[in-house]
Amino acid sequence: MTNPTAAMLVIGDEILSGRTRDSNMHYLANELTRIGIALREVRIVADVHVEIVAAVRALAGQYTHLFTSGGIGPTHDDITADAVAEAMGAAIGHRADAMALLQAHYDRAGLPFNEARQRMARIPDGATLIDNPVSTAPGFTIGNVHVMAGVPNIFQAMVASVLPKLTGGPPLLSQSLRVNRGEGEIATEFGALAAEFPDLSMGSYPFIQNGAHGTNLVIRGTDAVQVDLAMQRLQRLFG
Amino acid sequence: MTNPTAAMLVIGDEILSGRTRDSNMHYLANELTRIGIALREVRIVADVHVEIVAAVRALAGQYTHLFTSGGIGPTHDDITADAVAEAMGAAIGHRADAMALLQAHYDRAGLPFNEARQRMARIPDGATLIDNPVSTAPGFTIGNVHVMAGVPNIFQAMVASVLPKLTGGPPLLSQSLRVNRGEGEIATEFGALAAEFPDLSMGSYPFIQNGAHGTNLVIRGTDAVQVDLAMQRLQRLFG
Repeated sequence: MTNPTAAMLVIGDEILSGRTRDSNMHYLANELTRIGIALREVRIVADVHVEIVAAVRALAGQYTHLFTSGGIGPTHDDITADAVAEAMGAAIGHRADAMALLQAHYDRAGLPFNEARQRMARIPDGATLIDNPVSTAPGFTIGNVHVMAGVPNIFQAMVASVLPKLTGGPPLLSQSLRVNRGEGEIATEFGALAAEFPDLSMGSYPFIQNGAHGTNLVIRGTDAVQVDLAMQRLQRLFG
Repeated sequence: MTNPTAAMLVIGDEILSGRTRDSNMHYLANELTRIGIALREVRIVADVHVEIVAAVRALAGQYTHLFTSGGIGPTHDDITADAVAEAMGAAIGHRADAMALLQAHYDRAGLPFNEARQRMARIPDGATLIDNPVSTAPGFTIGNVHVMAGVPNIFQAMVASVLPKLTGGPPLLSQSLRVNRGEGEIATEFGALAAEFPDLSMGSYPFIQNGAHGTNLVIRGTDAVQVDLAMQRLQRLFG
């Protein structure tokens, strides 16, 4: 059995300008790994309609799932829902179910459900709403595209709403070994071991600590027996 | 004068698996913003030859500069140099200048300049070496593609070697205002202000602190007078 694949699209001028540091990607990567969906690509694009449309089309076409983060609030720069609708060939408008959710939310809070807030009820036709237990304004799933907020705690709550509905594959296992030798010293034997286990992925990640070279060796795969076996070999070589 | 544009390509199974958190992107974003080069897109792809080749072709064709991070070490999973060479239509081999640098480095360290380490001298024909004051193994620039290491302190040293050689544009200025109101409350007036300043980019970034909604409003542009003027208007509206 092979693993379903995924891509993530981050809509974020504020990340590209260096003003903020994305944390959603790291969160999603770990959650997907846990349920056996392989995150294969991430793109970060600016808040520009045509660029979002192009990225959604490319990524939704190439992977089992596409997760987006950012750009679904009430302000003029929140253009993700319209761009995703266009990319997926769907009409978009203020949908009754989302309007009702938001109306009830602002009524409870004693705040006006004004035009800007109504913008958050713009949902493409045919999409399913994604529950937002933090601040009500929903995300949505259309086809294989899951559209979520950029604010980290809302993003995480939406991920928790969506993932249980998806079919994962066997968990993507990994084991790592830290060795106090530089990559250049272990590369030949490590490469030979990798060649012996074509179904596993082996990576080496060098670091420098107190001026000394070291390497983290990582073995990844879905077959626990193979991963264990390869790790035993690795420990015999460098442990 | 418009600003040159840039994209970044991170080669990194270890980021896609969630094992490590990328920091090079945030560093490069800030450095580029400072010298007036607009980072417009970031992609993270797996350590897979065809995917690196496709991403390099797409991004180098679309932006003034492409910066890559990762995959230029001595192990079997370091495949960036060969993929970039293919994408740029260049031959690649062990280049004499890089071999000489590395030979001298390992001679000084009293370490064998073995086959794995020689792999780091694989540089495409026609590329210029990027200085690596941390660990010698060079990056390279070919055409508009700047190929750098993934280890953060080496990446940063290579960025410092490369950026002074590039022509930037006017600095990308930004000012921000933190308001203790939710986006939905300020969206209409903020959107109207943004429409009045078509040469500036205005974004709003909501947060929740101690259960209360707040928003960071950010104004970006290259014209300092316009940015100041818009910020004064913003302060009068919400300050």
